[in-house]
Amino acid sequence: MSVTKKKRSTRLIELTRVLLESPHTLFSLTEWADTYGSAKSSLSEDVAMIKMTFETEGIGTVVTFAGAQGGVMYVPSMALSKAEAFVETLLQKVEDPSRILPGGYLYLTDLLGDPFILKDIGRLIAALFPAHTFDLIMTVETKGIPLAFAASYVLNRRVVIARRDSQITEGSLVTINYVSGSNRHIQTMSLSRRMVPEGARVLLIDDFLRGGGTLKGMSDLLKEFRAIPVGAFVLMEAAEQNVRLYEDYISLLRLKQLDDTHQTLNVEAGNVFIKWKDKSVS
Amino acid sequence: MSVTKKKRSTRLIELTRVLLESPHTLFSLTEWADTYGSAKSSLSEDVAMIKMTFETEGIGTVVTFAGAQGGVMYVPSMALSKAEAFVETLLQKVEDPSRILPGGYLYLTDLLGDPFILKDIGRLIAALFPAHTFDLIMTVETKGIPLAFAASYVLNRRVVIARRDSQITEGSLVTINYVSGSNRHIQTMSLSRRMVPEGARVLLIDDFLRGGGTLKGMSDLLKEFRAIPVGAFVLMEAAEQNVRLYEDYISLLRLKQLDDTHQTLNVEAGNVFIKWKDKSVS
Repeated sequence: MSVTKKKRSTRLIELTRVLLESPHTLFSLTEWADTYGSAKSSLSEDVAMIKMTFETEGIGTVVTFAGAQGGVMYVPSMALSKAEAFVETLLQKVEDPSRILPGGYLYLTDLLGDPFILKDIGRLIAALFPAHTFDLIMTVETKGIPLAFAASYVLNRRVVIARRDSQITEGSLVTINYVSGSNRHIQTMSLSRRMVPEGARVLLIDDFLRGGGTLKGMSDLLKEFRAIPVGAFVLMEAAEQNVRLYEDYISLLRLKQLDDTHQTLNVEAGNVFIKWKDKSVS
Repeated sequence: MSVTKKKRSTRLIELTRVLLESPHTLFSLTEWADTYGSAKSSLSEDVAMIKMTFETEGIGTVVTFAGAQGGVMYVPSMALSKAEAFVETLLQKVEDPSRILPGGYLYLTDLLGDPFILKDIGRLIAALFPAHTFDLIMTVETKGIPLAFAASYVLNRRVVIARRDSQITEGSLVTINYVSGSNRHIQTMSLSRRMVPEGARVLLIDDFLRGGGTLKGMSDLLKEFRAIPVGAFVLMEAAEQNVRLYEDYISLLRLKQLDDTHQTLNVEAGNVFIKWKDKSVS
């Protein structure tokens, strides 16, 4: 195969792009040597430069695996200082009385449609839940879906979406009933039979946690597949719940108080920074 | 401000990352000159190298705007040859009899949960619908959502999700009834009042097109906001429909034939490559 030898500058741009666009994907230096017409030693130097720059920027690292099956892999993360700054920005956006809805609900739909916010949330989830600890990401329609894909893009894990109604286009379904932790209503959740292999380790993602019934439901549904929930992330939890049906979760924000009569609300960081020290891979 | 002057190699890695992670975002060379402690002329050379490399790779271009309000911006796209190869791969995955569901439906849920496939679809949508021609991306829950966010990430436009049921957490809603084009059922679609500004130009995205009733419904719903649909993308259309309530769309795949009794199916490329010549920005 005839290959045009590429200059270091061009190579650095291409390798940076390839690594960023395919996180948690193993690339072989031997194959790169063919593609770029460069010595493996030069490519190793390129990778070292990229690794150092990524680490300085607080966006994760590039891991090198030795041996015949070896190669390099981009492992995205988020530095604690960046995560703190991001949560601060988010709190300012969220703590806005115009978001208060009748019945004590909070309007968050706009944030869940914003690609910039979602990219940061994805990176933050990657800092908390190392990709090698799970095989799949699970969410329930509808508002958890953008969060699940934000994580999926960064962690290179597929998303499975539990549906609240049975859909013919999902094929055979496993369906369970579960109890909402906050209002004790019975609800239904279904998951396509083909989507979860036995023994799969699953990261649960949802937008809002009140009584924890939804996370408990997701966990129960996974049992039907003999799959294992290994962690849970929610964008926001409501403080001071009488019942909490699911305990092992990380929340980005906590709704401390909301009064729709007097139009006041109080939002703080969730348990994310308490959990950070134990969990972070950055 | 004290700035450490950075080497070209470090700068190329950082600028490549910044541009890739924030497509359709204007960056000022003057600000970069401060951040990186480099002359604007050096940064211009860096940008020229990145632009050339991106163009060679078929992943779009970097546009430079002159003047005081000027700067540089990454405009993602996909080269036609890459789009053709991607559709070919997708056809091979889709044309699998095990995907045939009772009632003549096709199982596509796994593909819509795969981050690699979604990233390519996003880039392909970017090649067809230039970001400056629309302000928002609209979809209907549930299976259109991954596609809408795939486009959102690449095109830097927010996503609005129409709901099939009324949700208290969406705030005030605008709701319409619409007629499914294939089975003439009456269905309901709601959109949060706050999500669509008057006059907004909207790209419609959905997973599957039969009679076109859903796209027609989305378009009718937007009229209530005095917003304007400017284009539509669907992952797959069903061939030979008696009624087609919405005509101006681009489809990636076309389901030509599906027989659930004999377990045969035939899928081909949609109208995407017919439309490519008129639409492509690559």
